Amino acid sequence: MHEKIKDLLNENDRFAKHNNIRVVDVKEGYAETEMVINENHINAAGVVQGGAIFTLADLAFGAASNSYGVLNLSLSSTISFIRPAKTGRLRAIAKEISKTKKISVYQIEVFDDSGNLVASMQGLAYSKDKTIP
Amino acid sequence: MHEKIKDLLNENDRFAKHNNIRVVDVKEGYAETEMVINENHINAAGVVQGGAIFTLADLAFGAASNSYGVLNLSLSSTISFIRPAKTGRLRAIAKEISKTKKISVYQIEVFDDSGNLVASMQGLAYSKDKTIP
Amino acid sequence: MHEKIKDLLNENDRFAKHNNIRVVDVKEGYAETEMVINENHINAAGVVQGGAIFTLADLAFGAASNSYGVLNLSLSSTISFIRPAKTGRLRAIAKEISKTKKISVYQIEVFDDSGNLVASMQGLAYSKDKTIP
Amino acid sequence: MHEKIKDLLNENDRFAKHNNIRVVDVKEGYAETEMVINENHINAAGVVQGGAIFTLADLAFGAASNSYGVLNLSLSSTISFIRPAKTGRLRAIAKEISKTKKISVYQIEVFDDSGNLVASMQGLAYSKDKTIP
Repeated sequence: MHEKIKDLLNENDRFAKHNNIRVVDVKEGYAETEMVINENHINAAGVVQGGAIFTLADLAFGAASNSYGVLNLSLSSTISFIRPAKTGRLRAIAKEISKTKKISVYQIEVFDDSGNLVASMQGLAYSKDKTIP
Repeated sequence: MHEKIKDLLNENDRFAKHNNIRVVDVKEGYAETEMVINENHINAAGVVQGGAIFTLADLAFGAASNSYGVLNLSLSSTISFIRPAKTGRLRAIAKEISKTKKISVYQIEVFDDSGNLVASMQGLAYSKDKTIP
Repeated sequence: MHEKIKDLLNENDRFAKHNNIRVVDVKEGYAETEMVINENHINAAGVVQGGAIFTLADLAFGAASNSYGVLNLSLSSTISFIRPAKTGRLRAIAKEISKTKKISVYQIEVFDDSGNLVASMQGLAYSKDKTIP
Repeated sequence: MHEKIKDLLNENDRFAKHNNIRVVDVKEGYAETEMVINENHINAAGVVQGGAIFTLADLAFGAASNSYGVLNLSLSSTISFIRPAKTGRLRAIAKEISKTKKISVYQIEVFDDSGNLVASMQGLAYSKDKTIP
């Protein structure tokens, strides 16, 4: 099922696809995404735009929170931008830190190629009690 | 100068441009951005991806926090997703709610065509004491 | 009913009472709290402790999110500390900015006696579908 | 110096003292606090008030972010409430996850006696370039 969720997101998340972001791993309460930086990710200051970093983290959060096969929606996320990124590959890792029937909390970290922390996010997801088709 | 910041972002923020997001207004401590929704904004659930909404809000935040002509960076943002969006035009409005020498706080709201609130964000910016070229 | 919620919180919230914080007004999706600063609110830097300011804001959030007579719990809050406070009376105002069947979003602002913004908070509440006794 | 910061907070943070919260350990970029729950921590729903949990977490954050001997202020925190607490001892652990010259990011977790996660917080601190007396 985890492979199915990965494929479903990589095929049907048009925004992620359009921005060269993809899911690379999904386990229960866990996911990884990656983005090879290109010129379309860059902002006016010459570094990767915060929205691109958020999207990379958010896709990992979405994949992880849907990893149980039940539809989950993102309610709220707090992201801290720690270090600018310019080139190479960024990777986001989402880990569940708590889960109740309706609400789960995830910690998502974004790393650059050297393993430096680029951003740290905490996200809340809400379960819709609806299985993923 | 506000016109200059608007043009600078619309020309040089490649990520915003690539995603059809643009600054439409900048005043002191204030900015508006917009995004006409297209198929590249859609996620696997058929609604606008959270990353697209964040980027729209974040660009308004960036334009507003740089509106004094001094370089400001985003430190941290909290976004709550309130209502899904599917079609039409989304608009983000960023307003300064506090400003000290180094740190400012912004409230950013994203609305759909009917004026419904789609997302609400609070952002912290850090001033670099460096004028924008 | 709003008067009942106010009294219920002022009588039964022991932590608020112990810290001289009380609800002064409750309407639908709205509440106000206040705290007259005393020496027990002060931190090692000689200003009102962040926890006291959070508690003041959180009590307003709790009163407002329970104002419909249905039990609501706080899921998550983001607070930005804007200006230190030392003496006088602090007041928090909580306003609903969105409400669905299960989740509501509140904006809470804390002001000092001169009307200066001391802190700004955004909170998410979760409805338990259980009426308040 | 870490012992000094611990003592300074335990003696001079009146709000923490008034609420039975104390620092138990400080290392570089790290701190632990604890609170033995008593009746003054309880809210109208009969569980530990969110403000008490926030204060416990915030004191750990404050101790950790000041552990280098340089004055740091809390800019902003996001707290997620995961599990209610009623009795026993709560403990908060703050860990630095990033640090630049001016801004640092901390992850703070609150546990109950059984090691269950009660709350998770992410905080941003701002360095004042002023040594702690």
